[in-house]
Amino acid sequence: MDLTARYKEVRQRTEKICSFLQTEDYVVQPVVDVSPPKWHIGHVTWFFETFILKPYFMGYQEYNPDYNYVFNSYYETVGTRVIRTDRGNLSRPTVVEIYSYRKYVDEAMESFLCGDVSDDVKELLILGFNHEEQHQELLMTDIKFILGHNPLFPAYNKSYVAPHIDEGRDDAFIKMDEGIYEIGFTGDGFCFDNELNCHKVYLNAYQVSPMLVTNAEYLEFINSGGYHDFRYWHAEGWDWVKTNKVEAPLYWHLVDNEWHSYTYHGLEPLHLKEPVTHISYFEAYAYASWKGLRLPTEFEWEAAAGKFNWGRRWEWTESSYLPYPGFAKAPGAIGEYNGKFMVNQKVLRGASEVTPPGHSRATYRNFFQTNLRWQFTGIRLAK
Amino acid sequence: MDLTARYKEVRQRTEKICSFLQTEDYVVQPVVDVSPPKWHIGHVTWFFETFILKPYFMGYQEYNPDYNYVFNSYYETVGTRVIRTDRGNLSRPTVVEIYSYRKYVDEAMESFLCGDVSDDVKELLILGFNHEEQHQELLMTDIKFILGHNPLFPAYNKSYVAPHIDEGRDDAFIKMDEGIYEIGFTGDGFCFDNELNCHKVYLNAYQVSPMLVTNAEYLEFINSGGYHDFRYWHAEGWDWVKTNKVEAPLYWHLVDNEWHSYTYHGLEPLHLKEPVTHISYFEAYAYASWKGLRLPTEFEWEAAAGKFNWGRRWEWTESSYLPYPGFAKAPGAIGEYNGKFMVNQKVLRGASEVTPPGHSRATYRNFFQTNLRWQFTGIRLAK
Amino acid sequence: MDLTARYKEVRQRTEKICSFLQTEDYVVQPVVDVSPPKWHIGHVTWFFETFILKPYFMGYQEYNPDYNYVFNSYYETVGTRVIRTDRGNLSRPTVVEIYSYRKYVDEAMESFLCGDVSDDVKELLILGFNHEEQHQELLMTDIKFILGHNPLFPAYNKSYVAPHIDEGRDDAFIKMDEGIYEIGFTGDGFCFDNELNCHKVYLNAYQVSPMLVTNAEYLEFINSGGYHDFRYWHAEGWDWVKTNKVEAPLYWHLVDNEWHSYTYHGLEPLHLKEPVTHISYFEAYAYASWKGLRLPTEFEWEAAAGKFNWGRRWEWTESSYLPYPGFAKAPGAIGEYNGKFMVNQKVLRGASEVTPPGHSRATYRNFFQTNLRWQFTGIRLAK
Amino acid sequence: MDLTARYKEVRQRTEKICSFLQTEDYVVQPVVDVSPPKWHIGHVTWFFETFILKPYFMGYQEYNPDYNYVFNSYYETVGTRVIRTDRGNLSRPTVVEIYSYRKYVDEAMESFLCGDVSDDVKELLILGFNHEEQHQELLMTDIKFILGHNPLFPAYNKSYVAPHIDEGRDDAFIKMDEGIYEIGFTGDGFCFDNELNCHKVYLNAYQVSPMLVTNAEYLEFINSGGYHDFRYWHAEGWDWVKTNKVEAPLYWHLVDNEWHSYTYHGLEPLHLKEPVTHISYFEAYAYASWKGLRLPTEFEWEAAAGKFNWGRRWEWTESSYLPYPGFAKAPGAIGEYNGKFMVNQKVLRGASEVTPPGHSRATYRNFFQTNLRWQFTGIRLAK
Repeated sequence: MDLTARYKEVRQRTEKICSFLQTEDYVVQPVVDVSPPKWHIGHVTWFFETFILKPYFMGYQEYNPDYNYVFNSYYETVGTRVIRTDRGNLSRPTVVEIYSYRKYVDEAMESFLCGDVSDDVKELLILGFNHEEQHQELLMTDIKFILGHNPLFPAYNKSYVAPHIDEGRDDAFIKMDEGIYEIGFTGDGFCFDNELNCHKVYLNAYQVSPMLVTNAEYLEFINSGGYHDFRYWHAEGWDWVKTNKVEAPLYWHLVDNEWHSYTYHGLEPLHLKEPVTHISYFEAYAYASWKGLRLPTEFEWEAAAGKFNWGRRWEWTESSYLPYPGFAKAPGAIGEYNGKFMVNQKVLRGASEVTPPGHSRATYRNFFQTNLRWQFTGIRLAK
Repeated sequence: MDLTARYKEVRQRTEKICSFLQTEDYVVQPVVDVSPPKWHIGHVTWFFETFILKPYFMGYQEYNPDYNYVFNSYYETVGTRVIRTDRGNLSRPTVVEIYSYRKYVDEAMESFLCGDVSDDVKELLILGFNHEEQHQELLMTDIKFILGHNPLFPAYNKSYVAPHIDEGRDDAFIKMDEGIYEIGFTGDGFCFDNELNCHKVYLNAYQVSPMLVTNAEYLEFINSGGYHDFRYWHAEGWDWVKTNKVEAPLYWHLVDNEWHSYTYHGLEPLHLKEPVTHISYFEAYAYASWKGLRLPTEFEWEAAAGKFNWGRRWEWTESSYLPYPGFAKAPGAIGEYNGKFMVNQKVLRGASEVTPPGHSRATYRNFFQTNLRWQFTGIRLAK
Repeated sequence: MDLTARYKEVRQRTEKICSFLQTEDYVVQPVVDVSPPKWHIGHVTWFFETFILKPYFMGYQEYNPDYNYVFNSYYETVGTRVIRTDRGNLSRPTVVEIYSYRKYVDEAMESFLCGDVSDDVKELLILGFNHEEQHQELLMTDIKFILGHNPLFPAYNKSYVAPHIDEGRDDAFIKMDEGIYEIGFTGDGFCFDNELNCHKVYLNAYQVSPMLVTNAEYLEFINSGGYHDFRYWHAEGWDWVKTNKVEAPLYWHLVDNEWHSYTYHGLEPLHLKEPVTHISYFEAYAYASWKGLRLPTEFEWEAAAGKFNWGRRWEWTESSYLPYPGFAKAPGAIGEYNGKFMVNQKVLRGASEVTPPGHSRATYRNFFQTNLRWQFTGIRLAK
Repeated sequence: MDLTARYKEVRQRTEKICSFLQTEDYVVQPVVDVSPPKWHIGHVTWFFETFILKPYFMGYQEYNPDYNYVFNSYYETVGTRVIRTDRGNLSRPTVVEIYSYRKYVDEAMESFLCGDVSDDVKELLILGFNHEEQHQELLMTDIKFILGHNPLFPAYNKSYVAPHIDEGRDDAFIKMDEGIYEIGFTGDGFCFDNELNCHKVYLNAYQVSPMLVTNAEYLEFINSGGYHDFRYWHAEGWDWVKTNKVEAPLYWHLVDNEWHSYTYHGLEPLHLKEPVTHISYFEAYAYASWKGLRLPTEFEWEAAAGKFNWGRRWEWTESSYLPYPGFAKAPGAIGEYNGKFMVNQKVLRGASEVTPPGHSRATYRNFFQTNLRWQFTGIRLAK
């Protein structure tokens, strides 16, 4: 791999995403799970500075020690972090200042990459690339939330087109045999630590749909009163529905009695054939219950993943996010990447239309809390 | 089974537990998870009235229709429930009135049981017995919470003795082979719906301790700063520790620099050799991390359960509470018993010193949220 | 004054009020402002023990030092108090134990009162009598809240009759001249420190109604949409209405389209001719605005008090609770009685149907936060 | 008055204040009481558009109907407002767009002012000028809050100099006689409706300090434990201190054991001779109690205002914000300006170093809730 080329490509992709923003869009944080775009672009830069340049690039001069405080995320090992809810209150450093910081770090990185890079550092670099790709996806979803919650419903980019993935249109469920399956990553390339330790899992016979649930299908659930019948919901999901008065997926608006949804183009009439998205696990589960079906486990999903086209939505699974047998946290700050989140979250498999190309794979384990909806989540049914 | 005898035995056991209470103790609800004892004794009575007498005992006259409203719990199918946090605000019906209600229902039940009982009803009856046993355990833990949070630290019963279970004192971990294990209930007797559907699970080789972690061992964790080092905790657990300023298990008090704990006898110096209890899942996980070990999964626990003595503590497992393959909710209110809680909870296995004798079994799946501590929870280590 | 006779009379009146309660009614605390009746009867006893017996009765043996902790209220000088919201979680001491405590203190007090009593102590005693009378009124309102929020709507006392006060029925407003009025207590008898420092106040000419607003009149406000038109409300009151979805006075229930209210006899059809009660300051103000009128200030009220019959309702005034010129807190715990509450509360004048006879007077200053409704509050209009 | 000149002057002053900001500084809202600067500059523009141009300038074309929704404040009459806490989540309209809106309205206003202006409209115009001046002061305090809560402590303007007001340095209290004083506005010029209805108030003899309390004096209060002794505080103030762990005025930081405060120049060592500022009413009251003195009432303040130099700090008074005799709200949205806030707030008198020159006067009644500190508040003692 040409590390310099890969570095530049990743870094430029981030800036491309932000090129459609106004300065003000970089600053706000409407809810705790959404970070201001300027924080993202600072944080991914801080990652390279903290984990590559400071320990491994002799003579590197830290850009600004205060930035360590401002752009840290959840890495408790590194220092006191800015509490996550406070990020949206920080007008400084400005966007221009953060781009200067990026430039400074990029120049240092490019010098650094001209020299010899040890295997250990190479591994960290590749982690850094994947880390920045994860934040590219978060940028896309956070920007959607920021603009989609503005009463003016501004477009992000009128030319935005989701990548094409052919799902076909075959309703026959894929049949999978009972038996032992190998689960987890085995190749040579990069994977996250939570995919490691390939291991055997025994599965009963099951079936899985080749198609994602569409907006049209989800609308039937709404129209049949699905949000008003506790029988389809977990007790905690039912509380969530009632407390938050949830009546539809995030970004759906009933305008003059017609459903619209906010997209990167602005507010548009609902595209009925598109796969439903921006739903919580609670909603995915309730929809499946209403259909008399269920969600696949992450093991069922992975075992069958070669038999359908995935990549349009992060697909909620029935599996909780737990360590694979033999999982161990890496020492130091890097070890905080995944393990500390392995409680009270659900695994999502696949990828979404805003996942950077090549970022995901069949063994990739994404994870979110059961109530969250701002990612491009979706539903695949099993039985 | 002599259903009448079984019915009487269960009902009397509940009243025996309450015989040590003052009237005032029946009324209060210090936190949402703890119910007032008078609610428990009304609710288990309501269960028999609602699911047996009203549908199956011809000519049965409902005791008081308003009680349906007061003593319902989470059965959304049956009617509007009293919101759980309000239970502790209800001074009426009085304790005397609720005992009259019990007597009325008991007399009707005893008449009913003199007649022929269909298999369907027998199944419901046995569910009712097991349901009341679960509330017996909750009565014990709720009473402990109520008295243990009173600044006067009154004893519940100076003669209370926990049932004896010999753990031995052998530190060698039990070794278990890699392979396929059968998990789930298979016998003829009663089990809950969440234990059904015996199925195969593939386990890697593992080891599990024959002993529970003791207070003395847990004290080492405290003394070595375990509550002040984020590295041992999940991110959510760490927030919980800091938000609630947790420094020790529930009921532990440092009096004149010596650790005490509140017991059914009142406040006593900590019994160092006893298994630690009243800890959250977060604490169990942190303790195991600090030891460089881990908690067993519920499958590992069940596969090895024949090789150690259990029953002193509900043992936190690493497993999330999820449906077994093929799990389906029963129709109607009974179907709300278990399935609706299968999200964001952890499985506990075994039984505790206040579990009614014979109530639990090796396939029994108890479950609680990760932050709860008022049950007699404990820690068994694995690797 | 025969102090022993006065002491006995006050103490017996408290017990008379409680004689209609069940043990369970003594225990609960449905909201923070309502204290459990058992706390009241302990607290007023603790007052005599703490401020009379312990400092002035040689050889007095404190009943139980822990009670100081349990029955303290807001007297920060005396020791750490039980946080007010926790009172309803304490099942111990039991009601029987608290009555034993009362008996013990009563016996000691009666011995003490046989001896010589200095003027200073006599003053404290009279404060103690008035203090217990205030808690008698709180007992009546707290009991009403406890029983009136129970879904069974139990009666407190079917024989309860409010004392008769003839309001007449004359709608002509009383006219008062512009000029200087003397405000504050001047007699020989007892008054609270907040009434002292009689001083001159200059009032413009004003008029005040001889009648309280009735339920029938208030119903017109409701029926004309008063709770849905922000123009009649303070901004803070409007937020309160919307946040709490307030639609009517406390204890009003629309049953089969007819207004009922909970009374000491249970739920009854609304008595239209009775003065409206259980309304917040926000509602009193909004009603007056809707009428194109206003509430009197406490000075206007006091200056005119000789010209109308008062005593059925505590009457919200437009005045904030502030110190009179020259007001100074007494040193020590007694000084905490009034002064520390002189912020963000409104003055109420008069007395209510549950104020002990003889307790109030024309200079008496009652005070509550603007959102509170569980007292027998009412409305007198001015212009 | 040359209305065009006055209009331009006011509008330019607002823009001058903002000229020191970065775009990002315009966007954030760290707490509910602080509005984003871009909201202020839009809102004051919306005021002229809504109350002058739309009703009175024939043929005026509204700039953007959605702005009515975005820039409304608390004027319930005009339409649904953006909930105040949401303001900081709006990245659009951008700062550039809002300045375009200002320019559009300014041009229309200047055309409009070339024509004949009726007396009614003139009154509204002058209200609009005063309204914008109030927002100029809020801009200054909100900007201070935004930058002063940024961990980088950026300066607002290194050249900022507070206007000079000579307080002298005479500690002798000014003596005022008992008697009747005239309170309220009487001149020809502009005043707010809450100052109207000049009326007589009877005051006892009192004394008031010619000097504001300094930082050095306030430091003595801190050093003597004032924040840890409940006796100096209202009960509600004491709760506020403990809940918020308040230890010093807002913006004070103990750096290497030396007190600093954040100023418009950045973080600086505390200026001991300056009048203390950024304190709540609770703190002002506690300081006065600790000194054995008190705060003046607003009437005492106004009666003595000719005898001392004021204008450096908004001075907390002991008076609650209440209507003067005969006060009546104007009809329509303008009537919401003051009256709806007349509950649970305290009056502040004087002006501060960031009050626009000429904006305040001796009868001016400012008002805030008792816990707020982000204004330039201060303490003048009375006895």
